[in-house]
Amino acid sequence: MNITGESLIGASSIKGGGADFFALDPATGANLQPAFHTAGKAEINCACDLARIAFDPYRATDPETRARFLESIAHNIIELGDQLIERAMQESGLPRARLEGERGRTVGQLKLFAEVLREGSWLDARIDPALPDRQPLPRVDLRLRMIALGPVAVFGASNFPLAFSVAGGDTASALAAGCPVVVKAHPAHPGTSELVGRAIQKAVAAAGLAEGVFSLLTGIGNQLGVELVKHPAIQAVGFTGSRQGGLALMAAAAARPQPVPVYAEMSSINPVFLLPHALAEKTDALATGFVDSLVLGVGQFCTNPGLVLAVEGPDLGRFRAAAALQLAQRSAGTMLTAGIHNAYEQGVGRLAGNPRARQLSHGVAGDAAGKGVPALFATSAEDFLADPTLSEEVFGPTSLLIACKDVAEMQEVAEHLEGQLTATLQMTDGDHDVVRSLLPILERKVGRILANGFPTGVEVSYSMVHGGPFPATSDSRSTSVGTAAIERFLRPVSYQNIPQDLLPAAIQDANPLAIWQRINGQLKK
Amino acid sequence: MNITGESLIGASSIKGGGADFFALDPATGANLQPAFHTAGKAEINCACDLARIAFDPYRATDPETRARFLESIAHNIIELGDQLIERAMQESGLPRARLEGERGRTVGQLKLFAEVLREGSWLDARIDPALPDRQPLPRVDLRLRMIALGPVAVFGASNFPLAFSVAGGDTASALAAGCPVVVKAHPAHPGTSELVGRAIQKAVAAAGLAEGVFSLLTGIGNQLGVELVKHPAIQAVGFTGSRQGGLALMAAAAARPQPVPVYAEMSSINPVFLLPHALAEKTDALATGFVDSLVLGVGQFCTNPGLVLAVEGPDLGRFRAAAALQLAQRSAGTMLTAGIHNAYEQGVGRLAGNPRARQLSHGVAGDAAGKGVPALFATSAEDFLADPTLSEEVFGPTSLLIACKDVAEMQEVAEHLEGQLTATLQMTDGDHDVVRSLLPILERKVGRILANGFPTGVEVSYSMVHGGPFPATSDSRSTSVGTAAIERFLRPVSYQNIPQDLLPAAIQDANPLAIWQRINGQLKK
Repeated sequence: MNITGESLIGASSIKGGGADFFALDPATGANLQPAFHTAGKAEINCACDLARIAFDPYRATDPETRARFLESIAHNIIELGDQLIERAMQESGLPRARLEGERGRTVGQLKLFAEVLREGSWLDARIDPALPDRQPLPRVDLRLRMIALGPVAVFGASNFPLAFSVAGGDTASALAAGCPVVVKAHPAHPGTSELVGRAIQKAVAAAGLAEGVFSLLTGIGNQLGVELVKHPAIQAVGFTGSRQGGLALMAAAAARPQPVPVYAEMSSINPVFLLPHALAEKTDALATGFVDSLVLGVGQFCTNPGLVLAVEGPDLGRFRAAAALQLAQRSAGTMLTAGIHNAYEQGVGRLAGNPRARQLSHGVAGDAAGKGVPALFATSAEDFLADPTLSEEVFGPTSLLIACKDVAEMQEVAEHLEGQLTATLQMTDGDHDVVRSLLPILERKVGRILANGFPTGVEVSYSMVHGGPFPATSDSRSTSVGTAAIERFLRPVSYQNIPQDLLPAAIQDANPLAIWQRINGQLKK
Repeated sequence: MNITGESLIGASSIKGGGADFFALDPATGANLQPAFHTAGKAEINCACDLARIAFDPYRATDPETRARFLESIAHNIIELGDQLIERAMQESGLPRARLEGERGRTVGQLKLFAEVLREGSWLDARIDPALPDRQPLPRVDLRLRMIALGPVAVFGASNFPLAFSVAGGDTASALAAGCPVVVKAHPAHPGTSELVGRAIQKAVAAAGLAEGVFSLLTGIGNQLGVELVKHPAIQAVGFTGSRQGGLALMAAAAARPQPVPVYAEMSSINPVFLLPHALAEKTDALATGFVDSLVLGVGQFCTNPGLVLAVEGPDLGRFRAAAALQLAQRSAGTMLTAGIHNAYEQGVGRLAGNPRARQLSHGVAGDAAGKGVPALFATSAEDFLADPTLSEEVFGPTSLLIACKDVAEMQEVAEHLEGQLTATLQMTDGDHDVVRSLLPILERKVGRILANGFPTGVEVSYSMVHGGPFPATSDSRSTSVGTAAIERFLRPVSYQNIPQDLLPAAIQDANPLAIWQRINGQLKK
């Protein structure tokens, strides 16, 4: 398939009138062909207007139609074959195995939402039949179902060029909900984006859907994204990226004449608690597991373990030494973009220059520009609590080890953390009482609590929460990974005394979709 | 029970240090005894800090404990007896029958949330068991449940001194979810608020709950509410009132270092579509039904029918005449407050002075200050579309009748409406095709679509949506009436590889709560 550098506006390919730019090979800094053309206001308006036009017919399609459409997108992505993997490797610097795995995850995600659509609980179908004889007043017939929110703006993330990008979790869940999607491609992987965009475009056409169900805007500069969020047709926003970027979109969305929800997944340092018995019994294994998780993908995961807490003592001393030694043997890796690498270097520099932190170890420096050198710092709980800058996310393979005087101080640090995506508890049976005291705190602070693993690795399933209190995300009531992500793009509508032939299928007495219905408060099928 | 004019801070009664004020009898403007004392910053901080302290132990109570607590509040409200009804009559000007009915609704609402708690679906319990043999990677054990968001600030509404006030739908659903509640009493009915607040305070003590589960702040001025919303302990806000008030709270919540969700139910003009066959066949009945709904409770309902649309012609002529005649026979009624009455008079004055509208009729003028005179205006669809001020809510018994050239123009008006709580379709079998063309538009615009009734009268049930797109509410994904209201105050947390003895009851394998669990995506019990 030819990469043209155009935006995909509905069924068309349109050369944007804005600035031209190139994808860069992050390993060399070299331009990758061809040139891309930034979408301008005309392209944004056209994509959003088409999405608005597509909204009613698209959301009216039955769940089976949308399920097949998602499966067709998955099929078309696989059909792109090695061209997709190779382009993504060039643009992201990520290795083949990782990208092949990520493609599998992307395709699996689309298929999982097809399954969700067919199962039907997402419709939250409810029926309260009329009670004409109720005293003192009769009860009307009332029914409820969820409908799609409207066209959704999705921002591709730099660190998952497939699974959190053009056909990633935000797009899959929004399309499943019945929302047309306008994606803003991440400028770090515009070619990958275009290829996947064309795979979706093809699926839209094959399914005979309104062309505005999907558009892809390519471009550089912040203006494009802000204009997109401000377009009156857009009814929700999905974003994964920096805190600064997320806050800017939240502000733009709140300032609209009609504010709309923003689901921004922003920053997280993912504390790992090494509880006393686990630390004593598994010191070396914990050090290895931690360093493996820290340097995985050059640390470029939202769930990277950026903070480790343990009680001071000989066990922590051994862990510290083992982790420092492990890390010293790990190589630097190419980071996704020069911008990310620069920010990483600055973040590490801030830690190195902070008198409250000391560097324990660093990895093997790379021989080329753009490589991120793993780094490990240490501080005390007292210093950590005294200096809020120590809890700022440094996106990349660096972590801060906090020595606490005792378990009570560990709890105090937990209580002072900002919202996080995850918290990890390394524990053995002897730690259960400490865990019981930590769990209520962590439930308030994070979206996912995990035991005896590391936070990297986010399963796409029914029970996943990839979310958490601000500033981990803009909306703690939601997840951007897993089947519950569909709920972000739905709203309830109630139908009172509407005749059967005019009711949506989900809430007809005959239950033609054969889904769960809540009748007088009881689930029935 | 003695009304003291104090704020209720946890288990204590505290005389606020701010301005003193009195409740006013809206029929006479006279002060009602005793004086109330506006809560100051110290009282706000104390209430919020107590709520923060109460949050973990309160949300850890099992659903049965909270269900009994809600039932105990209901019991205590009934125990207040006639004192509550009489005080509410004095403060609101509402008649006895209405307030007795509203008390029944308030109590029923609390009992319904007790039922919801016991049924357990609100926990959204999910279990994806580990798949240790999965290829290429094993799957971890993942489980999800909903937890409470945190302390909630609730603003009492002027127009429902019981059902949308201290122990109203916001409080009931937040307490059910496991959130402590800090209520800001509406200054129009502070005595009613204090009585109900003491009923809750008593229930908190009897249940042995942490005192911070409930506090009631009394006072005048906007500062109290804004300070409450800005307090870092507050994690969500429930509000029913004016657009201006709702927007101010949304802005305050968005400007916090940690933004929090605001559920503001603001303004709605609730369009009623008189479809051609229904208009022809039921002209007089529609006129009577419409005027009854319009003047009910002196028009002081969020769901008041402020807009009527029909196609111009002889049938509309007959409806217009009948409605005008009916309205001319209806009396003015005492409005809730002087402020509401003034705003109503100004709104009616704006319509009367608008060259694009003409007055069809008005009710019988009252003989005392503070009475709202019903009024009916007419305009054309063309004029309505040309002048956005004609779609501004006038809170009270006034409505605007829009004559459309044809059904297409009716659809055009529908398409241009702002978000609404409700839309009403008066139809017969012959209108079904028109309804089919209107439904997709209305689904995008409103929270509840009803046929052959009038929008006043909001059933508290499983399928009710009292919500809708902005500016009807600040968050179209929610309802403030009905069982789904509990979802506003919940967020998901995921548990990965957590041992059974540390897991919350809702997601243990043994399912001790005997609730629905979604296992590998399938609902089971």
